[in-house]
Amino acid sequence: MAEELVGNVLVGQSGGPTAVINASVAGVVSEALNHECIEEIYGTLNGVLGILQEDLIDLAAESQQAIRGLRTTPGAALGTVRYKLKKQQDFERILEVFKAHNIRYFFYAGGNDSQDTADKISKLAQEQGYALRVIGVPKTIDNDLVVTDHCPGYGSVIKYISTTVREIACDNAAMGQHDLVQIVEVMGRNAGWIAAGAALAKRRDHPHDPPHIILLPEVAFAPEKFVEDVKRVLKREKYCLIVVGEGLVDADGNYVAAADTTDAFGHAQLGGAAEYIQSLVEEHLPGIKARSVKLGNAQRAAAHLASKTDSDEAFLAGQRAVQAAVDGETDKMVTLIRGDGDHYTVETGLAPLSDISNGVKKLPREWINEDGVSMNFQFVRYAQPLIQGEVAVPFDNGLPAFAHLEKRRVEKILPAYEL
Amino acid sequence: MAEELVGNVLVGQSGGPTAVINASVAGVVSEALNHECIEEIYGTLNGVLGILQEDLIDLAAESQQAIRGLRTTPGAALGTVRYKLKKQQDFERILEVFKAHNIRYFFYAGGNDSQDTADKISKLAQEQGYALRVIGVPKTIDNDLVVTDHCPGYGSVIKYISTTVREIACDNAAMGQHDLVQIVEVMGRNAGWIAAGAALAKRRDHPHDPPHIILLPEVAFAPEKFVEDVKRVLKREKYCLIVVGEGLVDADGNYVAAADTTDAFGHAQLGGAAEYIQSLVEEHLPGIKARSVKLGNAQRAAAHLASKTDSDEAFLAGQRAVQAAVDGETDKMVTLIRGDGDHYTVETGLAPLSDISNGVKKLPREWINEDGVSMNFQFVRYAQPLIQGEVAVPFDNGLPAFAHLEKRRVEKILPAYEL
Repeated sequence: MAEELVGNVLVGQSGGPTAVINASVAGVVSEALNHECIEEIYGTLNGVLGILQEDLIDLAAESQQAIRGLRTTPGAALGTVRYKLKKQQDFERILEVFKAHNIRYFFYAGGNDSQDTADKISKLAQEQGYALRVIGVPKTIDNDLVVTDHCPGYGSVIKYISTTVREIACDNAAMGQHDLVQIVEVMGRNAGWIAAGAALAKRRDHPHDPPHIILLPEVAFAPEKFVEDVKRVLKREKYCLIVVGEGLVDADGNYVAAADTTDAFGHAQLGGAAEYIQSLVEEHLPGIKARSVKLGNAQRAAAHLASKTDSDEAFLAGQRAVQAAVDGETDKMVTLIRGDGDHYTVETGLAPLSDISNGVKKLPREWINEDGVSMNFQFVRYAQPLIQGEVAVPFDNGLPAFAHLEKRRVEKILPAYEL
Repeated sequence: MAEELVGNVLVGQSGGPTAVINASVAGVVSEALNHECIEEIYGTLNGVLGILQEDLIDLAAESQQAIRGLRTTPGAALGTVRYKLKKQQDFERILEVFKAHNIRYFFYAGGNDSQDTADKISKLAQEQGYALRVIGVPKTIDNDLVVTDHCPGYGSVIKYISTTVREIACDNAAMGQHDLVQIVEVMGRNAGWIAAGAALAKRRDHPHDPPHIILLPEVAFAPEKFVEDVKRVLKREKYCLIVVGEGLVDADGNYVAAADTTDAFGHAQLGGAAEYIQSLVEEHLPGIKARSVKLGNAQRAAAHLASKTDSDEAFLAGQRAVQAAVDGETDKMVTLIRGDGDHYTVETGLAPLSDISNGVKKLPREWINEDGVSMNFQFVRYAQPLIQGEVAVPFDNGLPAFAHLEKRRVEKILPAYEL
């Protein structure tokens, strides 16, 4: 048994929100209440910024209803941040705030950068001999954290996208008399994990089901091949449904949708990936209508359609972070470990924060079919368990009722800090 | 009692799909089974096109499971069409097909144009002394049919949009350190009914809730005022969430998002309304980030979030169409009539098809606040009952399971027809 460390908890959120990052906070808070060594449970507003500015709130003072409501509330209830700590002085300030409020347990939910920040805070505390336990909680729709089998947030975003694709497919199929190209733009600046997830919309043994073409950042975009691919689909099906990741790149590694560039055909580029694809279709396939949908922030906020598996795992990751810290662990992130059996099971583990912050998990090339625009059974086997189950979101007056924290401020002790 | 008319039913779908138009077909089919005067229940593939080409299917041969599944399946399971009958010959052909298949009951689910088509078919049958009963079933997300209080399809689209706005608001609020303008583009080429529906996302007594600005086709867009409106919101709130109807027009009545035009500032226009608004923000509000979401076809296909009230009314409209026809009515459309009480109730009525096809219901100007960018309580009182209740969509393997009809073809009797 590790030495008992008595003190307060601080939990924060960082990076892009997801449909389930609040479930992780709910997991931290509800587990923290189980341990006598934990006295106060604080949250930091807007991640490290809130620490620097001593903007802390008392999470134990929130109603139980509100904390339970976090399990089905999108966004980041504590506020999130993309602020990158640079100065050594920033890190010193953070420890100063921790000491002032007797923070002995720090839980940070976020992606690579956030885990890197948590790692640095942890290391500095060790150097200074300040007893602090730091455990990261994985969070990202991008699913690009290493070591962990997958990341909380990913299952929900691909459940939403594949549902949307299946629904749009019904709409498209209904207009069967028309030659229609439907484009759905999804997130994923650097990897195709999210776009690939749309493959789940296909029913088993229905190879003609949409999406017909998935454009991944992992496969250099070649406009000529693309136009031929679309022609082939239109010949075979009534319409062509294309899912495109916003981070699509050409053979030189440049974003196809970047402004002020020209494509392989020499045309000027405008706006997002969907518009680019739409303009290609309109130009090279006369008589074909192209329609686009850009899911934008809606996809990572769609709590009403969150995956129960994902939501439960996000909650579990928060709980396990607290348990690990109480057990004496520090400077680690909770990971999800998939069982070997045919039936999906998940356990949690721990990985050093430095391992997480230094790596990026790529979509395996061998999960992409040779055609470069569809996913094979290995991907489906990986992703399908992550979207299972529906979350019972409370509805009020016809709309999802989300939790709103009261955010009772913890009294500031220190002088103000200049950012 | 009307004279008993023995024969077959034909049901068709027309115009843009909705989340609940299939529920109307389910209503027609299940009600038709209750009447002995009805022998066969046929569907036409792709509306009037299917009639012209004698592409009919036997709906009574479909499994009960499939017909029940239609109640939660988006798109238009029979296929839809935007083909406009022009030639007298087309109408003659339609009657010829009706006679060949002893069609005595024709039910057509659609908007203005579709009801106009139904009206013309009905009138021609009367002229020729062919006993035929024609009843229209209202359908349109645009909510622009006259006489009826509202249209099946509308409640579901605004439930989806206001849910999405509420979810994106959580995401936006989380990024509180940033000055962010979030734009959500919704459908509505000629009227603001759909954009207005986003107002439901505001919680009662929370005037600061998004959407902060609703841009309606009913209010001529003035870029200078818009920029000032956004500045005011950004000063007051953490961010500014804007909902824009795709049919936004300037003071001259021109679409702001039309290609090859210039705006009031003299800038060239590209793509959709959201991009236009985004470009205005980026140009006139330096340092402000603008993000856009374009819901496109996803909004009218979102069966997973259909309004139960809407879905039930769509089913009811189908049932009532059959009942009315059996009772001897013809050349009418089923309407929805709202009760006078405080508690929302709905009854059905009938209106002449010619009344429907000749009118367009405008969003009442007095429901728009004086600021021109928000809706008042009269609109909320009208719209809120329409989004109540959630439909229990069957899920399979993590995704909504939609009905797929077997589409057993009715044998063709007539020679082929040249379109």
